[in-house]
Amino acid sequence: MSVPAIDGYRLQLRVYMEDTDAGGIVYYVNYLKFMERARSEWLRQMGLNQQTLLDEGTQLVVYRLACHYAKPACLDDALEISAHVVDVGRCRMTFEQQVWRDEELLCTATVEIACLSAERLRPKAWPASLNILTRAS
Amino acid sequence: MSVPAIDGYRLQLRVYMEDTDAGGIVYYVNYLKFMERARSEWLRQMGLNQQTLLDEGTQLVVYRLACHYAKPACLDDALEISAHVVDVGRCRMTFEQQVWRDEELLCTATVEIACLSAERLRPKAWPASLNILTRAS
Amino acid sequence: MSVPAIDGYRLQLRVYMEDTDAGGIVYYVNYLKFMERARSEWLRQMGLNQQTLLDEGTQLVVYRLACHYAKPACLDDALEISAHVVDVGRCRMTFEQQVWRDEELLCTATVEIACLSAERLRPKAWPASLNILTRAS
Amino acid sequence: MSVPAIDGYRLQLRVYMEDTDAGGIVYYVNYLKFMERARSEWLRQMGLNQQTLLDEGTQLVVYRLACHYAKPACLDDALEISAHVVDVGRCRMTFEQQVWRDEELLCTATVEIACLSAERLRPKAWPASLNILTRAS
Repeated sequence: MSVPAIDGYRLQLRVYMEDTDAGGIVYYVNYLKFMERARSEWLRQMGLNQQTLLDEGTQLVVYRLACHYAKPACLDDALEISAHVVDVGRCRMTFEQQVWRDEELLCTATVEIACLSAERLRPKAWPASLNILTRAS
Repeated sequence: MSVPAIDGYRLQLRVYMEDTDAGGIVYYVNYLKFMERARSEWLRQMGLNQQTLLDEGTQLVVYRLACHYAKPACLDDALEISAHVVDVGRCRMTFEQQVWRDEELLCTATVEIACLSAERLRPKAWPASLNILTRAS
Repeated sequence: MSVPAIDGYRLQLRVYMEDTDAGGIVYYVNYLKFMERARSEWLRQMGLNQQTLLDEGTQLVVYRLACHYAKPACLDDALEISAHVVDVGRCRMTFEQQVWRDEELLCTATVEIACLSAERLRPKAWPASLNILTRAS
Repeated sequence: MSVPAIDGYRLQLRVYMEDTDAGGIVYYVNYLKFMERARSEWLRQMGLNQQTLLDEGTQLVVYRLACHYAKPACLDDALEISAHVVDVGRCRMTFEQQVWRDEELLCTATVEIACLSAERLRPKAWPASLNILTRAS
């Protein structure tokens, strides 16, 4: 289903009733949830999960995002969500993300993530398991 | 706007796009969110808020619910959500709740809440500020 | 991933940040979304999807549900959601549903669905493709 | 509670459990829902509601947004959400929006809305009741 790669992830998902709105299309806010699912699977592929990070006192937060909606998705559509790391700093990371339905590009976004200490919400270096990525960039 | 009373609360709210689905009506799951808002305001009226409870190691969880949907609500509807305490135990509480649009009853539910220790998720007595309620019942 | 059967479906899914709440567990309302995903996949397996039904003027709505929460799920948990048809009428259907994390049963529900005409929200017979199910029950 | 003005709106709201995530803060995606509530109330103040627009074949969609998160909100916080129209075209409108907790600015966004024909999702002029705004800008 998914083609893993060190700097990205592609997630297939289905649109359910919970994702739609009275306009008959996917509620635009929900694409951001779809995009986070793809980033979470990328993290998992890198050996990290967010519950473990939280338990260790590390919290990942979105601090900036920009999103462009080109075409709407509908109930029961099969979508592919991509997440690609385009920039990595000591305490932050930038993803380019896209939502596709077959050959149609529905939505693009740039999402900037910070790594924070969960208790004081202060910037904190990425876990060591992401070092290979940091070195590569 | 709201008529407070020791054993109940009535909350007015508006239906927004986020609450609807592709059927053109309020997504049935979201009435349960509306009902929790009314219970939260009832708690606040009793001098409790859930963040303070969490900080003190107390977590309120729904452990059983039953819901009947009679008529749908739509985008932009003004609704009134009632929450009425009908039974109180040492570590649990039962609410009867209703969703109204003017004179029309749209939805009814029975929601059972447990008071747990946040760390181990074990039953725990209600905070002292609810004693008056416990004695009354 | 999934084991299809004419009268039921088992769906695997992952818990994401969007599904959780400040209690550190899955927000109880969201299990109902998970359960609808399993019912939607069961419908798809039966050759039906809800967008097509809506386009044909048929709307499926939940009119009654009862849910019992035994144990909480957490961020990053892998869950299995079952949907099993236990009763079928001319215009309604009852599902028994469960949420599992490995060998642990987290949540059970009975969900009653009605088949309505989308325009007037009046009861309407199930699509013919479900006849085999109706006959079997 | 709210201070209406022709080119803007300020909405007070409360953070409920449904709005939070396992990080113990408001799930970042949900600020966008809060912002839409403020835009919806601005529309209502201008004599428009979205259900009526949908019934007339007009759909408002977000086609671009940019959001910056400065500080997190928590469960039970009382927030104020502002929506201010900063640019109006024949078929589109741009809002600047902010989320405040007392004197603290938590989140800012620029949200661009298009007015579409609901059926074909093609650009369509704003309803006449917004003419005064169009003239003013």
